[in-house]
Amino acid sequence: MSNDSKSIKVFAPATVANVVCGFDVLGFAVNTPGDEVIARFTDKKNVTLKAIHGDEGVLPLDPEKNTVSAVVINYLKRIGEENRGVEIELFKKMPVGSGMGSSAASTVAGLFAINTLYENRLDYKDLLLLAMEGERLACGQGHADNVSPAMLGGFVLIRSHHPLDVIKLSVPKQLVCSLIHPHIEVQTREARKIIRKQIPLKDAVVQWGNIAGFISGLYREDYDLIGRSMQDIIIEPVRSILIPDFYSLKQKALDSGAIGFGISGSGPAVFALSRDEQTAKKITKVIQQHFQSQDIDSDSYVSLINEEGPKVI
Amino acid sequence: MSNDSKSIKVFAPATVANVVCGFDVLGFAVNTPGDEVIARFTDKKNVTLKAIHGDEGVLPLDPEKNTVSAVVINYLKRIGEENRGVEIELFKKMPVGSGMGSSAASTVAGLFAINTLYENRLDYKDLLLLAMEGERLACGQGHADNVSPAMLGGFVLIRSHHPLDVIKLSVPKQLVCSLIHPHIEVQTREARKIIRKQIPLKDAVVQWGNIAGFISGLYREDYDLIGRSMQDIIIEPVRSILIPDFYSLKQKALDSGAIGFGISGSGPAVFALSRDEQTAKKITKVIQQHFQSQDIDSDSYVSLINEEGPKVI
Repeated sequence: MSNDSKSIKVFAPATVANVVCGFDVLGFAVNTPGDEVIARFTDKKNVTLKAIHGDEGVLPLDPEKNTVSAVVINYLKRIGEENRGVEIELFKKMPVGSGMGSSAASTVAGLFAINTLYENRLDYKDLLLLAMEGERLACGQGHADNVSPAMLGGFVLIRSHHPLDVIKLSVPKQLVCSLIHPHIEVQTREARKIIRKQIPLKDAVVQWGNIAGFISGLYREDYDLIGRSMQDIIIEPVRSILIPDFYSLKQKALDSGAIGFGISGSGPAVFALSRDEQTAKKITKVIQQHFQSQDIDSDSYVSLINEEGPKVI
Repeated sequence: MSNDSKSIKVFAPATVANVVCGFDVLGFAVNTPGDEVIARFTDKKNVTLKAIHGDEGVLPLDPEKNTVSAVVINYLKRIGEENRGVEIELFKKMPVGSGMGSSAASTVAGLFAINTLYENRLDYKDLLLLAMEGERLACGQGHADNVSPAMLGGFVLIRSHHPLDVIKLSVPKQLVCSLIHPHIEVQTREARKIIRKQIPLKDAVVQWGNIAGFISGLYREDYDLIGRSMQDIIIEPVRSILIPDFYSLKQKALDSGAIGFGISGSGPAVFALSRDEQTAKKITKVIQQHFQSQDIDSDSYVSLINEEGPKVI
């Protein structure tokens, strides 16, 4: 084929899943951080992982086990090109196991890259199903709440997992996201285990009132409503135990002008939404200072909502 | 006072609460049926209930016990006019205990009437709180999911009950509602009792995906999405036991072109949403025929979504 020498570099965004009131059904993408993947055709007959940069050696280099190469292998099988040679190079630009959709960003970047090399042979729904397989490999569960916003950009609702039904929602123009990643470890698998399997119906009613309010707030660009809806009486009280001083952090973020604050995915990263960059920067500073006062280092990112998803760079 | 001889007649709409995927948080109003209330000042010093028409004698005539007069008494207390004479006359234009918000329509009509006589002294939030007290009297629980859409019109989300936070949602222009009321008895209090108090988290996640999808569908005017979201795996499987052949009725409604079908409130009325009046009429016919085949008489109503709430007539 004529495109054997093609090489492509793709960026895919970090994502905030759950967004406080939308456990397992809601997520959004940010402009920064994000991962980058280079993919190129080779004259070999398999997928190779040339290198991983920036992961401090924690990710597997076996192409069958690393999610990026694994989803590319599955992509090739899916389109009947399993003997095609592809070389992958992954640039981790965000911490692994942070709760910011690290594996999803890598996976989506890899799939977007290979699909672009194949001139968009698969549509986004097929890519999402492949990306969810990658999540299963990385996290033990094939959830869609990081890969969907990483793939589509913006706020994404996963209305249904079986069958997969993802809805790209409206993005209020002023929203800015603060992401703060404390250097403590929370395993997604572990974080899921501590959640109760049975919940009171009356709590569920409160929760679906809030997710409904949040969605409505997005469409109306009603920032107060978005903020009032960012409450979670089911998951947050349990998961927040893993994040030192969580409720003090939350209060400080709200006092600094956040419209809402919560755990990003299953943590340990936390996030805030606010209405302008200055406020968002103030929030990250206050939260980082609080972590520092407990001898916890952290990284922070301030970003608009990413609306376009992955892109060739 | 100069307005002692004033008399006013008000219409308030029937409502469909829950709307399949929004148990206790969602409802909408229809143009027909609805209740009517006449209110006039008298030179007495209390609230009197002159007559109730169309209730077949089932509603209490004691002004303290009938919800309409009871909420008017509370209204007068609220504004410090407890010694004012008011005469109420209620025209029930819909069946009692039907699941179509019968008590809410009467209550809202009464409150809107007295508030109009007092030149809108209270705002809609105060009126809603008074209306919820009326619901407590009628149903044993002070729910807002019928009184809110009856008061505001359109689709209404009750994001939170404590504190009360109601959001008027977008109304897709083509939506038509079919309401069919079979002549069987389901008591709201009883219907609530059979619902489990603990539910699986994974079912709750499915439910909040659906309510989020439904809200998104309203704003996008995406009728397919509205229809796909009208699923309830928590309440409907339990309550539907009280409605003979419920799942056959649902299948027939969908086969006749309904985008969604479910129990109105706690039943026994059922409702369908569709995209035009002809389809809505076809659905009511098919459902009524099925009830008839089981020797169950029924009433039916076809109506656009009521967008204005109560009005002086």
